[in-house]
Amino acid sequence: MSIKMRPIGVVETDVADADIAHQRRKMISEIRIFEEYAEGLTGITDYSHIIVLFWMHRVERSANQLVHPRGDSELPLTGVLASRGRGHPNPIGFAVAELIEQKGNRLKVRRLDAYDGTPIIDIKPYDHYDVYTELRMPQWFNDRLTRHRSENPQSGG
Amino acid sequence: MSIKMRPIGVVETDVADADIAHQRRKMISEIRIFEEYAEGLTGITDYSHIIVLFWMHRVERSANQLVHPRGDSELPLTGVLASRGRGHPNPIGFAVAELIEQKGNRLKVRRLDAYDGTPIIDIKPYDHYDVYTELRMPQWFNDRLTRHRSENPQSGG
Repeated sequence: MSIKMRPIGVVETDVADADIAHQRRKMISEIRIFEEYAEGLTGITDYSHIIVLFWMHRVERSANQLVHPRGDSELPLTGVLASRGRGHPNPIGFAVAELIEQKGNRLKVRRLDAYDGTPIIDIKPYDHYDVYTELRMPQWFNDRLTRHRSENPQSGG
Repeated sequence: MSIKMRPIGVVETDVADADIAHQRRKMISEIRIFEEYAEGLTGITDYSHIIVLFWMHRVERSANQLVHPRGDSELPLTGVLASRGRGHPNPIGFAVAELIEQKGNRLKVRRLDAYDGTPIIDIKPYDHYDVYTELRMPQWFNDRLTRHRSENPQSGG
């Protein structure tokens, strides 16, 4: 069985591919929804944040199902489905982005870590029911979060 | 341009389709990942919550881009992309589910509002960076949230 999707828009950004990983928390990009789907954005600015699903079309597919998270060989080998990195069987990108502005079929967003030209496959509003605050995460994740916060006391992330 | 995906697993639940909408907050179901992708789950139990993307294969496609959220005609007409309901150009379902247990290629989860037999297209761990708590949402959403909380003081949702 094969599932077919249609791109509904495209990511536009001046940030070079190689700079996206370390600029992601601040980077601003635009989502251009194709005209035929633009009416579907009606009311989107009632929300401060949106879920963006995109198709990582330039990521090479790999048969390898175990990876080091964040490409860091000090972190334990982890399944791709238990990791937020690349290498998933279907290369779907997921981001919660802050919606800054809508102009017709264009959305200006903050924190969408997708390459220029990436096809958009869905947009959904992010709401209260997506928020879980009592989380268990791997120890290495908690360690890095603590370190990040101590090094960036003003950071919201 | 058309994008092709492969199902990586399937949802298994005894809950009837018609009962899922009102049971969703408590319902427990299983995700059976196909054997060929099962190694990709390695380490998933380090996380308490997972993002589940699925393909709503039984939802009829509609050309209508404006809907009343939750099928409630008292709520303002809203674009499908600004609504969490059905009718998106690509019928991708999104849920944050609580991971209760892993047994090999099977994940037992709480709060996955997908029909029995629904194809799974991706699993990702849910982590701290997916959590935003300063949210703007439509007034009707806030009103209902307030009402729900006053009627269900013990509810976590």
